[in-house]
Amino acid sequence: MLNHKAAGLTLTNNLQSTLNIIWVVHEHAPQCHIIKLGTMGEYGTPNIDIEEGWIEIEHKGRRDRFLFPRQASSLYHTTKIQDTDLLWFYVRTWGLRVTDLMQGPVYGLSTQETELDEQLGAFFNYDEIFGTLINRFIVQAVAEYPLTVYGKGGQTRGYLNIKDTLACVALAVMNPTEAGELRVFNQITETFTVNELAGKVAKTGKERRHNVEIKSIENPRVELDEHYYNPTYTGLKDLGLSPHYLTDEVLHGMFEVVERYKNNIQEHKIFRGVQWK
Amino acid sequence: MLNHKAAGLTLTNNLQSTLNIIWVVHEHAPQCHIIKLGTMGEYGTPNIDIEEGWIEIEHKGRRDRFLFPRQASSLYHTTKIQDTDLLWFYVRTWGLRVTDLMQGPVYGLSTQETELDEQLGAFFNYDEIFGTLINRFIVQAVAEYPLTVYGKGGQTRGYLNIKDTLACVALAVMNPTEAGELRVFNQITETFTVNELAGKVAKTGKERRHNVEIKSIENPRVELDEHYYNPTYTGLKDLGLSPHYLTDEVLHGMFEVVERYKNNIQEHKIFRGVQWK
Repeated sequence: MLNHKAAGLTLTNNLQSTLNIIWVVHEHAPQCHIIKLGTMGEYGTPNIDIEEGWIEIEHKGRRDRFLFPRQASSLYHTTKIQDTDLLWFYVRTWGLRVTDLMQGPVYGLSTQETELDEQLGAFFNYDEIFGTLINRFIVQAVAEYPLTVYGKGGQTRGYLNIKDTLACVALAVMNPTEAGELRVFNQITETFTVNELAGKVAKTGKERRHNVEIKSIENPRVELDEHYYNPTYTGLKDLGLSPHYLTDEVLHGMFEVVERYKNNIQEHKIFRGVQWK
Repeated sequence: MLNHKAAGLTLTNNLQSTLNIIWVVHEHAPQCHIIKLGTMGEYGTPNIDIEEGWIEIEHKGRRDRFLFPRQASSLYHTTKIQDTDLLWFYVRTWGLRVTDLMQGPVYGLSTQETELDEQLGAFFNYDEIFGTLINRFIVQAVAEYPLTVYGKGGQTRGYLNIKDTLACVALAVMNPTEAGELRVFNQITETFTVNELAGKVAKTGKERRHNVEIKSIENPRVELDEHYYNPTYTGLKDLGLSPHYLTDEVLHGMFEVVERYKNNIQEHKIFRGVQWK
């Protein structure tokens, strides 16, 4: 963790922004469909199957439907849980229409649009804070910087291609919710462990004659590095999503772009030992 | 709801205060036991039994333990849910010691200490925002102002005497939690519907020769006015709480004090038509 001031900024900035959107919609466009980017990180890694936002609980012979239990492993992700609480309160009270997209870590550099011209390239982070795992591993492989696996590397998460991120948001736009409905989709297309991803990136990197090494380091996060993980993610496919999976071809395509910009890689930004505790 | 600005203040003020406490404890007294006043309002009125903060969920043949699902019926109570999320994140990450007391509506005017001298009297609200139900009904009865029942009056909540509030906090102080534990107690001693309480207050009021009328008004809140409600509240009794129940004698005692100050009652403050939606 950085410090008290930064924590306060994360908390207030994230929640106040959500509140502002809620109020402006309520006061000026109450029929407007709010599409909110949440995160799969809200759920953490429970020992039961992760449903799409909601769960029916049977307890002592009675039943009710609740938001799926959430517990995250960073303050940022905790504020996303709080966002969901806030949205759900106003959806119930004011009958707002909200879709909350529980997105997993995104990978990829290109979309149909960015491929039209090099100048349209998407933002691409490869550092330990904003760089999501697959993007970061590919940069590390190209820079011949050991792939940094946290702890045992058994952390499993759901991933998706940046092309599918855009498709999911578009599908949500084209299929608005009913008034008074908080609809939740788990926005991922397949799951991998960190070790599986390190293995895939190392294999592709070696095929492209990079000298790739995998290195386990002490986990800077408080999280289980071996755990059960079985999320449901059928809602967006039911709306028509056809996923781009993490094939060898996709990996080679990402390597190609990163290799083209190899000289731009700032190695000292890849890993500076940020502690998430 | 008041307005956007007031909502932002409630949100930021409540959460930033909790964050400040968390950080000051972490940085300066990490062994300190934080006792936080939450509210039974965090749970709402689920159709399953309300446990003390935690629930073990069995789902598709697997089990895990989670914070009990929470959904409140005001923004204020929603920020208390968010407080619990925040505390639980830091308890897991930093090993803090926290007791979160889910308190029900408190009634009563006197404690052992306030009875020593009239000048030590506790704060006493009887308006529709801060005045809790039993206190407000007694003032209404003494002022011969109809008891305002919201909707059908079937709203059930857990209540406790102000003497027990103090005893509960003292019991939490004397029995600190382990490091890394978020302990939750449901701080109530018995449950009543609004109609039951209106009936009790009316009966006592009539015995004291007040002209008491019960009047149902349109519910200014978004809430169920008839629902299942079965909370567990054994934790504090297990620590030694011996409850003061809402007996006729207790009601007569409260009437006595309110009657003594009858001329101070500001009738126009009892009900001004605040809307909670």
